[in-house]
Amino acid sequence: MILVMKKGATQEMVQRMVQRVESMGLKAHVIVGTELTVIAAIGDDRNVKKESFESCEEVERLVPILAPYKVASRETKPDATVVKVRDLVVGGGHIGVIAGPCSVESEEQIILAAKKVKEAGAKALRGGAYKPRTSPYAFQGMKEEGLKLLAAARDVTGLAVVTEVMTPHHVETVVKYADVLQVGARNMQNYHLLQAVGETRTPVLLKRGLSSTMEEFLLAAEYILDQGNQQVMLCERGIRTFETHTRFTLPLASVPYLKQKTHLPVVIDPSHGTGIASLVPPMCRAAVACGADGLIVEVHPDPKEAISDASQTISPEVFAEALVECRRVAHALGFTMD
Amino acid sequence: MILVMKKGATQEMVQRMVQRVESMGLKAHVIVGTELTVIAAIGDDRNVKKESFESCEEVERLVPILAPYKVASRETKPDATVVKVRDLVVGGGHIGVIAGPCSVESEEQIILAAKKVKEAGAKALRGGAYKPRTSPYAFQGMKEEGLKLLAAARDVTGLAVVTEVMTPHHVETVVKYADVLQVGARNMQNYHLLQAVGETRTPVLLKRGLSSTMEEFLLAAEYILDQGNQQVMLCERGIRTFETHTRFTLPLASVPYLKQKTHLPVVIDPSHGTGIASLVPPMCRAAVACGADGLIVEVHPDPKEAISDASQTISPEVFAEALVECRRVAHALGFTMD
Amino acid sequence: MILVMKKGATQEMVQRMVQRVESMGLKAHVIVGTELTVIAAIGDDRNVKKESFESCEEVERLVPILAPYKVASRETKPDATVVKVRDLVVGGGHIGVIAGPCSVESEEQIILAAKKVKEAGAKALRGGAYKPRTSPYAFQGMKEEGLKLLAAARDVTGLAVVTEVMTPHHVETVVKYADVLQVGARNMQNYHLLQAVGETRTPVLLKRGLSSTMEEFLLAAEYILDQGNQQVMLCERGIRTFETHTRFTLPLASVPYLKQKTHLPVVIDPSHGTGIASLVPPMCRAAVACGADGLIVEVHPDPKEAISDASQTISPEVFAEALVECRRVAHALGFTMD
Amino acid sequence: MILVMKKGATQEMVQRMVQRVESMGLKAHVIVGTELTVIAAIGDDRNVKKESFESCEEVERLVPILAPYKVASRETKPDATVVKVRDLVVGGGHIGVIAGPCSVESEEQIILAAKKVKEAGAKALRGGAYKPRTSPYAFQGMKEEGLKLLAAARDVTGLAVVTEVMTPHHVETVVKYADVLQVGARNMQNYHLLQAVGETRTPVLLKRGLSSTMEEFLLAAEYILDQGNQQVMLCERGIRTFETHTRFTLPLASVPYLKQKTHLPVVIDPSHGTGIASLVPPMCRAAVACGADGLIVEVHPDPKEAISDASQTISPEVFAEALVECRRVAHALGFTMD
Repeated sequence: MILVMKKGATQEMVQRMVQRVESMGLKAHVIVGTELTVIAAIGDDRNVKKESFESCEEVERLVPILAPYKVASRETKPDATVVKVRDLVVGGGHIGVIAGPCSVESEEQIILAAKKVKEAGAKALRGGAYKPRTSPYAFQGMKEEGLKLLAAARDVTGLAVVTEVMTPHHVETVVKYADVLQVGARNMQNYHLLQAVGETRTPVLLKRGLSSTMEEFLLAAEYILDQGNQQVMLCERGIRTFETHTRFTLPLASVPYLKQKTHLPVVIDPSHGTGIASLVPPMCRAAVACGADGLIVEVHPDPKEAISDASQTISPEVFAEALVECRRVAHALGFTMD
Repeated sequence: MILVMKKGATQEMVQRMVQRVESMGLKAHVIVGTELTVIAAIGDDRNVKKESFESCEEVERLVPILAPYKVASRETKPDATVVKVRDLVVGGGHIGVIAGPCSVESEEQIILAAKKVKEAGAKALRGGAYKPRTSPYAFQGMKEEGLKLLAAARDVTGLAVVTEVMTPHHVETVVKYADVLQVGARNMQNYHLLQAVGETRTPVLLKRGLSSTMEEFLLAAEYILDQGNQQVMLCERGIRTFETHTRFTLPLASVPYLKQKTHLPVVIDPSHGTGIASLVPPMCRAAVACGADGLIVEVHPDPKEAISDASQTISPEVFAEALVECRRVAHALGFTMD
Repeated sequence: MILVMKKGATQEMVQRMVQRVESMGLKAHVIVGTELTVIAAIGDDRNVKKESFESCEEVERLVPILAPYKVASRETKPDATVVKVRDLVVGGGHIGVIAGPCSVESEEQIILAAKKVKEAGAKALRGGAYKPRTSPYAFQGMKEEGLKLLAAARDVTGLAVVTEVMTPHHVETVVKYADVLQVGARNMQNYHLLQAVGETRTPVLLKRGLSSTMEEFLLAAEYILDQGNQQVMLCERGIRTFETHTRFTLPLASVPYLKQKTHLPVVIDPSHGTGIASLVPPMCRAAVACGADGLIVEVHPDPKEAISDASQTISPEVFAEALVECRRVAHALGFTMD
Repeated sequence: MILVMKKGATQEMVQRMVQRVESMGLKAHVIVGTELTVIAAIGDDRNVKKESFESCEEVERLVPILAPYKVASRETKPDATVVKVRDLVVGGGHIGVIAGPCSVESEEQIILAAKKVKEAGAKALRGGAYKPRTSPYAFQGMKEEGLKLLAAARDVTGLAVVTEVMTPHHVETVVKYADVLQVGARNMQNYHLLQAVGETRTPVLLKRGLSSTMEEFLLAAEYILDQGNQQVMLCERGIRTFETHTRFTLPLASVPYLKQKTHLPVVIDPSHGTGIASLVPPMCRAAVACGADGLIVEVHPDPKEAISDASQTISPEVFAEALVECRRVAHALGFTMD
C-alpha cells in the first residue's frame, strides 16, 4: 500500500509512520515529492489492519495496491474453472443455459416448465422453493415440498436443478435435492451462508449484490472458495442505479472484466437484470456476444399466471427463439453452445 | 392499483383485464382517456399477485396506489413509538445516544470505552462481537467472548448493550447478553434473521441496506413487527452512490421523511454514513437539527489502534465535544437530550 | 394523470381538486377506493402545469400517465428513422461505424487515423476539435484549426466527419466542416445548444447525459426535433453509478428499450462506456448483438501517445479485429454491416 | 502520481516507463514490492498528460496523488472567502439566506415574494427569468422582461438579486440586472459559460451537477476563479441516486467536506435537494447545524399557483418559521445569522 502524508507533515511524523509500517512486518520506503511525501509499504498487506492508518492525523489517505482477493484471482489460477454438473457445462468456451420459473408453484407447472426449457436447449432447471420476498405478505415459496417437485422434474427430464438457499440451516436440506446451490443477491454478504455453502461440494451460483463492487463480489466468492468448494459461478444480475425504466441496470462489461480478473465462470441473468420480458432476448444475445459462460433465464409455461416476477418472465416459445439466436451468435464467435 | 392499458388496446382486451381484476376480489373501474385507457382496481391489493398484470401484453404498466407496509405505518399508529431500555430513551422527543468501538477487542478496551462514552453522555454502548467483514481474511470478531466483555462493561457502567447479530442461530446466544439486537445493513433483507429477532422481545436496531429504498426498509421493519416485536429503531447509515469522497452518502432527509411515514424512531449513524472521522461531529449536529431520535457513533479510546473502521472512529474527547454541541442544538429546538 | 388524494381527504377537498382539474381543460373522474380516493384527469396534459397539484396539501401524489415526449415517440412515427450522410448509414437494420481519436492532434495524426479506421470498415471519422475538459488546465482542443484538419481527412478518405459542438455560437462554424454535429454528454441539457443544432439541417449525434433518465434523454432529442431537424441519433455512452472498476456503467438494455420507444437510431459508445481499452471489443460485439444501429469508437494510431482518453483508446489493429467479429455477429442475426 | 506496473512486468518495461516519466519533467522512483513494482513520479503533474500512462500495456493502473484543483484549494488560501453583495453576507461565520420563487411570473408575484422573504429574514431574492426546462413544452421563463421585474423588486426591497444565466451570450444582459449570477446544475460543466461568468466581476453561485464528484465541482469553480472572478459560492443541491422517495438525495456531508478542502463558501438548496416542501424546513436546520454558509430556498406567495417546482416550494409563513428555528440553531453554535 501507499500512504500519502498530509501536506506539511514533519520529518518526525514521517518517521513515526515508517515505524508503524515496519512494526507490521512490512518494509517502508519514503518518497519525498515536491508537494507531498508518500510512504510505500512493501509486502503482503492482505492480513494487516490497514484501515488503522487512515485514522492517523498525519495521513491524508491510503492507497491499496494489491487486490484483496487471492484464490479467485486469475493470477493464482490462470486457466478457466469449468463447472460441470449433469449435462450443464459452464465455462471454458462452453455456454450453459439455466432456465425455469421464478417460483415452484405446483408439480404440473414445474414439470411442464422443465420439459419446455429442455426442449429449447436449457441444461438446467431453475425454480425457487425458498423465496426471499421484500414484503412479508408476499408468497414465500413451497419450501421442502418445492424441492421435492424440482427433484421430480429432474427425474423426468434429466435437467440439473438450480435452487436458492437462503439461510445456513437450510443448506443441509437443500443440498439433498439441488445440483447447484444459488446464493441470492440479497445474501451475497451473508457470510455464514457463504461459509455453509462453501463447506459442501455442490456447485454454487453466487449472485452479485445489487450494490456490490467487483471487489466485494470476488471477496464473497473467496469466502466460498476458502472453505474448499471450488465450483463457483459468478452471476451478474444487474445493479441498482438511478435508472427506473428498467428494474435494475445490467452492466454487461462485468463479463469481460471478471473474466480478466478471475478464473471463475460468469453467468448473466437478463431477467432480473432488466425486469422487462421484451428486453430479455436481446440481453441474452448481448451476453453471449461479450463472452458470458452462461445464462439464467426466467421462463414460465404461462407468464401471465406466474406467482412472482411475472413481468420479467418469458414464455417457452420466446425462450426457444432467443436461444436459436444466441446459438448463432455463439457459433459466429467460436463458442460452444448446444 | 391503476392499470395503464397499451395504446390501441381493444375493448375486448380491456374487458378481459376487468375480469381478471374482479377475479381477484377487487372492483374494476374503467376510465377511457383521449390517448389511453386506464383501469382502477379498488380494494386492498396488498395480498394480490399484482406483478402478474405486468406480464399481460395489453398492459403498459401498473401503478400501485397503496403503500405496501401496514404495521410500520404512521396511519396505523399515529403516536410515536418510544424505545426504552435501561437509561436509553429513543423517540417521542428524546434523543438517545449509543456509542462505542466498532469491534470489541479486549476487556480493557471495551470497559475503558464504556466509561468514556458514558462520561460524554451516551446511554448505550455499541461494540461488535460478531463482525460481518467484506474479506474472509479480516478480523471476524471475538464472538461469544466479546458478548461477555460487553456484559461486563454494562455491569461496570450501567450502559445498555447494543450489538450485532448476523445469523438466525446466533439470536439465542446474543439475546442473553444484549439489550438491543442490531441487524446490520448487509442483513436488512435477510428475512430469516428478521423473523428470528422479531420472535424475541428485545429491542432491535435495524440498519438500512446500503441500496435499499424506503419501502424496502419499512417492509424489512414490517417483517420484525409482524412477529410481534414492537420495539424497532430504524437506523439510516448511508447509501451507496457514485460519490467516492465519503465512504457512503448520508441522506439526512430520511429523518423527516421516515418520521412522516412511520411511528418508529429514527437513529443516525454518521460514522458509517461518512467514513471520515472529521465529518462525524457536524453530521451528528445536523442529524439532531432535522429531528433524529438517536445517534449511534463509533468511538474508541485510541482510534489509531482500532482493529476495524479506524478511519471513521473518533476519540472520546472529540465525541464529548460533539455531544455538547448536539445538546445545544437539541435544546434550541425543544428536544430532550441529556 | 392520476391524483392520489391523502387518506382522510374530505368530499369537499376532492370537489376542489375536481374543479382545479377541470379549470385546466381536462375532464375529472373520481374513484373512491376502500382506503384512498383517486382522481383521474383525462385529456392531453403535456402542456398543463401538473406540478402545481403536488403542492396541494390534500394530494398525496401525482402519477403521470402519458409519456412527455411526442415527436421522438415510436407511436408518432412507427417506422425507423435512418440517418444517412456520405457512406454512413445508421438505422433500419444498417449498422454504421464511426471511429477516430478523442482529439484532433495534428494533420499527420488525423489523416493516418482516418485511413486506418476506413480500412477497418468505419464509414465516419470522429475527432474532437473543441474539447470539453473537466480541468481548466487540460488540453482544450485545436478549435477551428482542428475542424480544418478533419475536413482534410475527409477529402483524403471520403469518410463523413463527426465532431462535437460545445456552445451555440460555435454551431455556425462547426457546421461548415462537419457532416454530423455531436452534442456531448455534459451538454445533453444545454437547451440553447439543442435548439441551435436543431435549427441546422446537419445530422446530430446526441449523447446521453451521464445521469439522465430515458425520459430526459428523449426530451432532449425532442428539443432538436422540435426545431425541424429530423436527423437525430441517440448515443448511449454510459451512466454514472457506484461502480468504479469501469469509468462509467454501460447499460446496453438502453438499446432495445429505446428502439421500442422511439424511431430514432441508437448508437453505442463502448469507449466512454467502459473507459478501459480491453473492454471495448467485447462491448462492441454485445452492442451489435442487442440491436444497436451504430458504434462510435475511440481509435488512435498510437494509443499510448493520445493526448486525451488514452486509457480507453484502441489501436487500428485491435479495432479492425473487433469489427471482423462484429460483422460475424451482425450477419448471424440478419443485420447489414459492411 | 504512482504507476502500478502489471504483475510480471520485466525490468526493461519498468525502465521504459521510467524514461517516459522523466521525459515529462518528473522524477521517477522505482519501488520493487514482493508481488508488484510501482513507480512514483515526483513533481507537479497537473499539466502532464497522465492518462496516456493508462494505455501502456505494462501499467496496471495510475494513482493520482495531488488534487487537480489549485486556486480553489484551502491549501492555496487558508482563510475563508466571504461573498458580500448588498446586505447578503455568505461565509466566514455569516449565514446568508437567498429565497424566492422558482420562476418570475409577474410583477405582482415577484414583488410580493420579495417583500415576504425579506420580512422573514432573507437578504437576497432568487427568481428565474431564463428557465432550463427538461421538456421543450414547459414554460421557458419571462427572459429579459423577468430580469426587469427582478430589478424592480430589488428597488422596492433592497434585496440582492440572484438569477440564473444559461448560455454565454446571455451573460452581458443578465449581468446588467443581477447581483449574483447563478450557474445551474445542468450547466456545471458548460465550460464556455463558466469562462463567461468568470470574466465578469459579479459574484457567482455555482450549483453542483447532479452527478458530479467533488473534484469535478471544484474544477468547475476553478474555471471561474481562473478567469479572475474570486467571488464564487458553491451550492450543493442534491445528487441523483437510486432513491426515488425524494427528487434528489441531499448529501449534507458535502458541507464540512468542502469547507475542509476549499476556502469558498458553501450554500445549501434544500428545495431541489429534496423536492418535497415538508422536508425543506428540517433540511434548512440541518444545513445550518453542519456549518453551511448560506441557504437558497424556493418560496412563493402561493405555492399552489407556482408555475414551476410547486411541489418543493414553501409559503412565506412556513419559510419565516423555518428561519426562526435556523437562527436558534445558528446562535446555539456561535454562527451569525440575522
